[in-house]
Amino acid sequence: MRKVAIISYGLTKVDKHWNKSLRELFGEAAKKALNEIEIPSIDAIIVGNMCASDLSDQNNIGSILADYIGAIPTTAYRVESACGSGGAALLSGFTCVASGMFDIVMVGGVEKLTDGIGKETTYSLGKAADAEYELFYGSSFVSLNALMMNRYMHVYKTPREAFADFAVLMHKNGAKNPYAQLPFEISRETVLNSETIADPIKLYDCAPVGDGAAVVILCPLEDAPKYSDTFVEICGISGATDTINVSSREDLLSLKSTITAGMKAYKMAKMSPADIDVAEIHDTFTITAALSLEDLGFAEKGKFDKMMSEGTFEPGGIVSINPSGGLKSRGHPVGATGIYQAAEISMQLTERADKMQVPNAEVGLIQNIGGSGSNTYVAIMRRCR
Amino acid sequence: MRKVAIISYGLTKVDKHWNKSLRELFGEAAKKALNEIEIPSIDAIIVGNMCASDLSDQNNIGSILADYIGAIPTTAYRVESACGSGGAALLSGFTCVASGMFDIVMVGGVEKLTDGIGKETTYSLGKAADAEYELFYGSSFVSLNALMMNRYMHVYKTPREAFADFAVLMHKNGAKNPYAQLPFEISRETVLNSETIADPIKLYDCAPVGDGAAVVILCPLEDAPKYSDTFVEICGISGATDTINVSSREDLLSLKSTITAGMKAYKMAKMSPADIDVAEIHDTFTITAALSLEDLGFAEKGKFDKMMSEGTFEPGGIVSINPSGGLKSRGHPVGATGIYQAAEISMQLTERADKMQVPNAEVGLIQNIGGSGSNTYVAIMRRCR
Repeated sequence: MRKVAIISYGLTKVDKHWNKSLRELFGEAAKKALNEIEIPSIDAIIVGNMCASDLSDQNNIGSILADYIGAIPTTAYRVESACGSGGAALLSGFTCVASGMFDIVMVGGVEKLTDGIGKETTYSLGKAADAEYELFYGSSFVSLNALMMNRYMHVYKTPREAFADFAVLMHKNGAKNPYAQLPFEISRETVLNSETIADPIKLYDCAPVGDGAAVVILCPLEDAPKYSDTFVEICGISGATDTINVSSREDLLSLKSTITAGMKAYKMAKMSPADIDVAEIHDTFTITAALSLEDLGFAEKGKFDKMMSEGTFEPGGIVSINPSGGLKSRGHPVGATGIYQAAEISMQLTERADKMQVPNAEVGLIQNIGGSGSNTYVAIMRRCR
Repeated sequence: MRKVAIISYGLTKVDKHWNKSLRELFGEAAKKALNEIEIPSIDAIIVGNMCASDLSDQNNIGSILADYIGAIPTTAYRVESACGSGGAALLSGFTCVASGMFDIVMVGGVEKLTDGIGKETTYSLGKAADAEYELFYGSSFVSLNALMMNRYMHVYKTPREAFADFAVLMHKNGAKNPYAQLPFEISRETVLNSETIADPIKLYDCAPVGDGAAVVILCPLEDAPKYSDTFVEICGISGATDTINVSSREDLLSLKSTITAGMKAYKMAKMSPADIDVAEIHDTFTITAALSLEDLGFAEKGKFDKMMSEGTFEPGGIVSINPSGGLKSRGHPVGATGIYQAAEISMQLTERADKMQVPNAEVGLIQNIGGSGSNTYVAIMRRCR
């Protein structure tokens, strides 16, 4: 299996991009990535996206984007795995390069959510849950996560404030991120006094709805120095599934897909959680962050709050969590989120993260979840120089 | 790069499956494929689908199908490239096995179209075209293909009847296919006297709308004998794009994505069109068949009708075209079509095609188109014993 590098990346700010279409957003991110390197061709384009069919009346966006950026006759297709679409696209792109079938692969993600009118966007996002056994009964993502958060506080006697404190940390980080949708600091009270969405989840426990596009360029590791002075190796990558219905799970407080994907990625990279210096994790809600930190091995079960209060997850802590601000503050353009994460970790490991930079980051991890944990993609990257 | 085999397949009849959901249809095909072999695990599931979001309110179907067939915690994601989704899923599955990342990969396609109420299905299928530059102006797939058919008849002076004769051949073949949606013979007059859909395209020039699921199981070629006595090698595979807008093409009568994908697949397999004994091509409309036959190198440009009248494409002819009946008679469950084709060629090469069997089929080809030729996937398979 060929080793695979990320040689370049490009991001748009996550925002309400009323005046830019899907292809224009993607084009902006692609152009930034291509401007950084000199490559002879783009052999494949793989793009993560979930909601274009519903909210932009558009499928077949692999072909559209290949056309828009002038890459015809390249191979191009879309990968969809709900909010994990970006992570799944990265895995698919990885196998394309690792196999030897393709040399230079653009893996991107793009999502436009704000064009949907309120309910329309919520309904479209709901299609990541089980239409027949969850949506039909009126469940939404926030209500399913509220069940988990209630259960967590009941089982571990965790104070409500601990979840608020995670949101505070995310906004503190995101305030330094030029690509963040909500780049401002908040206080514990901002969270606790915000509107209840599905008790106990408050508005500031939730990632916002936004538009954005992100791109990374992959090539064989051995070719990377030809194209770029700053690249990272993807040394571990995997995906795993769990039951789609939250109601079918043995334990509401454990994301089995994250546990499995994490273990496989650590094994492939020959690493453990202790080797990770910086991670971008999938904090759709503050409860999702708590479970993810524990299931990736960064915190003991039921103790994310204790470790957080010790500074473990702050920039420069034992493992810097979401220096980008995470989904909470950077934003969550669903099918693009996994690619934002990959680009952000590339930035950190190549020391180009500017005010977000954490010191001495040699190894980074991304975790991208689809549905309420029905699938998770994990990738581990390492600095090459 | 590891060599890749197809060791098993499963199909449902293409039909109006009112009483079966997406997951049930997929499960039926998966069960048939799994019943034929003994395998230790399913390491990944990759599924082609286009319209589930619109017509079944469901995204994230990789996870749903993994859950339904009991394959958790396998890796699972959806691939979408409009009507080429199945071909794109096959390519993605191929790279998964070829890379060494995964050993046993289930590649499937599933589509439920008849649940949509008339206009709803047509609108959903239209999202394979360009929403901003084609759909917005009222184009539909049939109207875009009608432009091509008019142009073809004008340039090559081809009689209208030649297109009807292709449909007649497809129905003659499909009448022998137990999985076909329209398994009955028709006459030239059936086509010519059928309703006009978009002049000059008549009802019987069009593939029908139907539901179906298909599955193939891939593994490294060297492991194939452990799991199955009847397997084929995928010896060439590729995908390519063209402009999404038909209006942007230099030549309306040439599917550049098919030409490029074909050339790449032939090169990878070290073969030429003359080596192909049997092919399943993407005849959405009779004009699509004409262009495809020519662009794959099975007929000279403008002369598909002459070669057809010489029996070139009949079962046992120089190259047997669509012994399944093709999209026209077997049916076209959009995101599953490419996988039907792969299963049908596997059947032919392992001599299990029963009444559809063509004699001495050693090498087969599939061609799966997305949009009006905006992308094409081609795979070449060879008999292993």
